Amino acid sequence: MNDQTQLGVIDVPKSCDMLAARLRNQILSGTYAAGQQLPAERELMEQTGVSRNSVREALRILETEGLITTRLGRYGGSFVCQPTDEMFSRYLTIFSRSHSIPLKSLVEARQALEPQVALLAALNRTEEDLVALAQGIRELEESQDSASFLDMNMRCHLLVATAGHNQLLQVFLTSLSSLIRDIAGEMEDIVVTSVKKDVVRFHHQLLDAIRKQDADAAVRRMTRHIKAYEERFASALSQ
Amino acid sequence: MNDQTQLGVIDVPKSCDMLAARLRNQILSGTYAAGQQLPAERELMEQTGVSRNSVREALRILETEGLITTRLGRYGGSFVCQPTDEMFSRYLTIFSRSHSIPLKSLVEARQALEPQVALLAALNRTEEDLVALAQGIRELEESQDSASFLDMNMRCHLLVATAGHNQLLQVFLTSLSSLIRDIAGEMEDIVVTSVKKDVVRFHHQLLDAIRKQDADAAVRRMTRHIKAYEERFASALSQ
Repeated sequence: MNDQTQLGVIDVPKSCDMLAARLRNQILSGTYAAGQQLPAERELMEQTGVSRNSVREALRILETEGLITTRLGRYGGSFVCQPTDEMFSRYLTIFSRSHSIPLKSLVEARQALEPQVALLAALNRTEEDLVALAQGIRELEESQDSASFLDMNMRCHLLVATAGHNQLLQVFLTSLSSLIRDIAGEMEDIVVTSVKKDVVRFHHQLLDAIRKQDADAAVRRMTRHIKAYEERFASALSQ
Repeated sequence: MNDQTQLGVIDVPKSCDMLAARLRNQILSGTYAAGQQLPAERELMEQTGVSRNSVREALRILETEGLITTRLGRYGGSFVCQPTDEMFSRYLTIFSRSHSIPLKSLVEARQALEPQVALLAALNRTEEDLVALAQGIRELEESQDSASFLDMNMRCHLLVATAGHNQLLQVFLTSLSSLIRDIAGEMEDIVVTSVKKDVVRFHHQLLDAIRKQDADAAVRRMTRHIKAYEERFASALSQ
């Protein structure tokens, strides 16, 4: 099998990938800070001996990774930035859709995150977090139609995540929640709006635990809440 | 402030972005299945009226998103594929590094996932999963040096995730674990190798719960295990 006369395909590295890797390292190691402008195309060509097309492809790679934004025209150029939550969301969506991840798995993943987020909120919340959360719950209570009730419900969950002060859990949860809402759509909406009073009461009780920094109660209430959601949503999820 | 004579910057969409969006939709909606070849550059130019450079940039965008691989040369072209776990890992690394997410937050995120993964493993494991996990624990016990002990420990955790049959939680956990190991490096290694016996015993007990499909015990044991890890690792994490 191991025919020594066979050379096998030679996988030549692309110059755009090599240039992108170098620039990526410089950005991630802080050589270029957020907001700073990368050298112009011509200068990158001169510094590296890479063709204009390959320079452009390298910049497109970095832009797709969320590490730079490029602006055309007179004040144009490539500017270093931080990958946004939206970009993370986009990748999660691409991954989920191309692997046909079922709704059930997305909901299970969210269920893993929510109790931990509630626990961290109880431990790490600031006075500002409490004010924002109380305000969110007030708007939830006062919402006049189902659409705004649903928006505010999601917003209250994300405010708890903010109060947890863990940016990674926050971006996981935000991305998952919007993906679930895209997929589940009306199914989820009907489940949530059918129990408006319970949802509002839950948010009040959770805020109370977070305010008192009672981590056990926060986890217990969140766990009970997502369990109830799961049961109501079970028939939809088993499809 | 709202000076009506000011036009503001006009943000012209780039043709490469527009072409990438169309191809992405076709790939995600199944028009092109995994393994299939996209039309050649020339054909994409003719179909869309977009320049060769923009076609190439569009393909580079899709390649960066993990949706195609491109091969140069005689048998070359762009082939549709599914984003790999490694690609997800790469994005998590880029996001974490550019936002300077602290090690503590990464560990907290992993802690959120592990009990849910243990629970799902107890519910969903197959006979093959049990065999693979038992084999993993055997290799963990028999490992001769610290490096292989650490590798096998991580492998046992990932085998539990596999047994949970939730691909998204699996990819979250795999990416987080390798990122934590990259950053924590020796710190984590010392913590884990200092309690080899405890680690092996834990894996046996967890397997036992998973085998009996005792979800409560699986969650309880995993939670106790990560709490002990957290306490041993606390001084390192508070840095």
